[in-house]
Amino acid sequence: MVTHITEQVPRSIWYGWADPARATTLRPGALTYLRATLALESIEKIHEPVDMSAIRLPTSTLDPAALAELWEICGSQYVSIADHERILHAGGKSTPDLLRIRSGDALGAPDAVIFPADAEAVRRVLEVCVAHRIAVVPFGGGTSVVGGVHTIRTGFSAAITLDLRRLDKLVDLDPVARTATLQAGMRGPDIEAALQARGFTLGHLPQSHQEATLGGYVATRSAGQASTGYGRSDALVKSVALQTPTGPMMLGSAAPGSAAGPKLLDLVVGSEGTLGVITSASMKITPVPEHKSYGAWSFPSFAAGAAALRQLEQDGVRGDMPHVCRLSDSDETAATFKLGGTKTEALGKYLALRGQKTPALALFVWEGPRAEVTKRKRRSARILKAAAGVRLGPMPATAWEHGRFSGPYLRDELLTRGVYVETLETSATWSALDSTYAAVRGAILDALGEHGKPGYVQTHISHVYPDGASLYFTFLGALEPDGLAQNERIKAAASKAIVGAGATITHHHAVGIDHSPYMEHEIGALGIEVLASVKHTLDPTGIMNPGKLIPTRKKDNS
Amino acid sequence: MVTHITEQVPRSIWYGWADPARATTLRPGALTYLRATLALESIEKIHEPVDMSAIRLPTSTLDPAALAELWEICGSQYVSIADHERILHAGGKSTPDLLRIRSGDALGAPDAVIFPADAEAVRRVLEVCVAHRIAVVPFGGGTSVVGGVHTIRTGFSAAITLDLRRLDKLVDLDPVARTATLQAGMRGPDIEAALQARGFTLGHLPQSHQEATLGGYVATRSAGQASTGYGRSDALVKSVALQTPTGPMMLGSAAPGSAAGPKLLDLVVGSEGTLGVITSASMKITPVPEHKSYGAWSFPSFAAGAAALRQLEQDGVRGDMPHVCRLSDSDETAATFKLGGTKTEALGKYLALRGQKTPALALFVWEGPRAEVTKRKRRSARILKAAAGVRLGPMPATAWEHGRFSGPYLRDELLTRGVYVETLETSATWSALDSTYAAVRGAILDALGEHGKPGYVQTHISHVYPDGASLYFTFLGALEPDGLAQNERIKAAASKAIVGAGATITHHHAVGIDHSPYMEHEIGALGIEVLASVKHTLDPTGIMNPGKLIPTRKKDNS
Repeated sequence: MVTHITEQVPRSIWYGWADPARATTLRPGALTYLRATLALESIEKIHEPVDMSAIRLPTSTLDPAALAELWEICGSQYVSIADHERILHAGGKSTPDLLRIRSGDALGAPDAVIFPADAEAVRRVLEVCVAHRIAVVPFGGGTSVVGGVHTIRTGFSAAITLDLRRLDKLVDLDPVARTATLQAGMRGPDIEAALQARGFTLGHLPQSHQEATLGGYVATRSAGQASTGYGRSDALVKSVALQTPTGPMMLGSAAPGSAAGPKLLDLVVGSEGTLGVITSASMKITPVPEHKSYGAWSFPSFAAGAAALRQLEQDGVRGDMPHVCRLSDSDETAATFKLGGTKTEALGKYLALRGQKTPALALFVWEGPRAEVTKRKRRSARILKAAAGVRLGPMPATAWEHGRFSGPYLRDELLTRGVYVETLETSATWSALDSTYAAVRGAILDALGEHGKPGYVQTHISHVYPDGASLYFTFLGALEPDGLAQNERIKAAASKAIVGAGATITHHHAVGIDHSPYMEHEIGALGIEVLASVKHTLDPTGIMNPGKLIPTRKKDNS
Repeated sequence: MVTHITEQVPRSIWYGWADPARATTLRPGALTYLRATLALESIEKIHEPVDMSAIRLPTSTLDPAALAELWEICGSQYVSIADHERILHAGGKSTPDLLRIRSGDALGAPDAVIFPADAEAVRRVLEVCVAHRIAVVPFGGGTSVVGGVHTIRTGFSAAITLDLRRLDKLVDLDPVARTATLQAGMRGPDIEAALQARGFTLGHLPQSHQEATLGGYVATRSAGQASTGYGRSDALVKSVALQTPTGPMMLGSAAPGSAAGPKLLDLVVGSEGTLGVITSASMKITPVPEHKSYGAWSFPSFAAGAAALRQLEQDGVRGDMPHVCRLSDSDETAATFKLGGTKTEALGKYLALRGQKTPALALFVWEGPRAEVTKRKRRSARILKAAAGVRLGPMPATAWEHGRFSGPYLRDELLTRGVYVETLETSATWSALDSTYAAVRGAILDALGEHGKPGYVQTHISHVYPDGASLYFTFLGALEPDGLAQNERIKAAASKAIVGAGATITHHHAVGIDHSPYMEHEIGALGIEVLASVKHTLDPTGIMNPGKLIPTRKKDNS
């Protein structure tokens, strides 16, 4: 049996990711490469975040009477109005979030951070918040990159953040039906530790896995790095317990299939805290695989690689798809080869000799019984070879796995070096994948370079479906003096291209504040009215995570 | 390539299923068996439906001004107020529906039947109906067995049925993404003919397939006989175009995966016409399989067979599950052996010699490339054998497939013979399957036998999931003088047992009028409020399929 219990890390520092001591620093070669690619003169210069004492925090507007009621419910040690705690909950982990907090702006911080013990405490906290018109932000790992955990006070007497870390128990595990009920505040590694002790895994490994929580997975409709095999969080969730300002709800059921009307569970999955607080969820679980096997292949182009993945998914033997299935475009591949050390550099040279001048690298991890995995790999190899693939051996895939959770650390270091870096993602059908890729990549490059400095974009597919695939863009440039404006410019250009291509505004980052202007593109004006009516039914005073998901109506803007 | 274009049959007669001339009549052996099992003295006696001229139809209350407007939109030949058409649309095809109509009761008939040409005509018809407060029943194949297509006039000036048969076109097929957009009124065989001409199949084959329509599949969250392989309709649907009284909606998208908030598509799937009229839907399609292979196995008991299916699903090689996967309990197996002719009778004797005194018969159809199917069958055989299965050869599975759509014909004949017969279904997790089976079966038997006559129940699993399976009950008894009361008594007892077992009130028959009292069990009182608020947003005057899905509030009943 594969023991793949993931590393348990401390909760994130206020200005970046997790525990920076665990980060691997950029090698000199990488710095040289970045300096050249982005025309950065001063990459050695260190841009430290401001001192914590210099952070601008809003004055707390929490009514002392409300505070006393919250103490009564949770115990005073679980109701924090300390600056440090408020700063730690001032936002998520998007690049603009980090730019803001590093510059000392914690104006999105809550007036208090509450740590309820259980669902009943959540229910009572919501009662207090309704009575005092206090906005409530549910908070899991705080890893949102779309403004999902900012507090917005407008129209409220105050705003609190409900940190669910104490809801951290495995409630129930049914080994026959292969389901487990988990409390919402369990973080990724805790979920895996609890399940793997019983021989099971959730298999949900987003890049944020080490910090993110079960409730966050479900509330944001997240996808993990192995979701091609295990399924997205929305495919794994069977039922959800929710506390709303109107009362508790239990949606979904144990029944494996039902035709009992619209699937209301799917209103809560992806609701991002706007309808209520998810306190636990029942999830499908899988026995820990006996064996993992790694593979890497190279294709003459990104389009050729995508066509190969499509064939593998559509025409391969059902069940042969690797659990992890990624394909980098030639830019990302070149960077991987360039920055991965001598061995990977040699790979690039080898491929050039094989006629692949702009190769696209695919990484695979198959999981399952050893004998079966071997057969799946062999059958898959036939398809990949016929699709002009060159087999490279497992090393690039094991190297990827080794660094799979390191992206956010790297960003912290890049920001410290004055490098702007951000990511965004979408998905498209196989028939629209190439055109979506070209349109979004082009828009990002144009927007990056608007002020004369060269930008850099690399892209990969990380989730494969029968009808299409995801597209994930990582882009870098010299950080401009107004980094927030820079980010907004690039994000707007990319979003316009996504909408124009008919793709989705988000494949797995969710909506939050940042994507809410594009919700009309996703569900139409009438769809937004439907969402608003559901919210009004469950949260008539509108205290639940205001400003997220449902776009605020603008009168003068079309 | 397997050519499995399904038979195109005429639309159903008013008092029963499709074209009775195509039915195979009950063999004398079956009559003898039924007479003995159900203590029926007079099974040879024929109970004909009343003459059409004797049918009681409500006087049409349709305002002539509204009628004129409907003529204007659809053309007078597509707005029928003829008795015959109204009778044909007076209800669905449940046993109580048939008992009512055969006795001459068509009081649920609409005031007019409208046949709109396209989505735009649907939109305009809804406008007229809002203006005149006319209730609207969307009508596909009219195969509902839960009262989904009855007209309910209370609170309205009149009620019309919107028959969508003219929306019968394949709009678009994307062979790369493997999706097709189909108009809602296409019936099952027409869908297959259109797709198979392009090399694809929807693979959706409920027992009602030959009459039912795409819109009905989506509106009722249906499952088909091969849904273990192809997936339920809710897993196949990518997007839906809907006309609501408030305006048109397009929900879902081409994007294969999205985290853009709650999945509103799942509010329309299963909405049973209560929110609007589905005019088209984009569905996942699959290439027509190269080969189909049949298998039958017998297990010492229903529980042993269920455990074997669970192992096949959970521990077998991913993708080895047969597309069709059914398991009969020992009652259904005994009846199959008894009534299937000499060959199947011999099977029963053979199994008794092998020590299986109360065998449970499993039927499988594997689909795919020939070589692959052979391997899948071989691997599956290892699991089934280890689980005490005895292989029987393909005959019982091919025989089942031959008669797969004949159930409704058989019921017509049984009713004519004075035999009460009905079906109901649920699903449960593997861990709760045995107890759910025992509780529901026991409740039906007790209720059947309440007046001293013996009843008969047979049960099968027809859909297998990683976490559980469906349960489908067929039950017979002597038809009592008040067949409607008899049916209500048995249905209520079974429903109580289902709710008590924590199972779902319907796995694939949907809700309609009959299951609406159990919706609170499924989604809670707050869930019903959510549904009502969504309905109010899209259908503020409540004209869309009133009385279905959402339970009518009772003041005196708890």
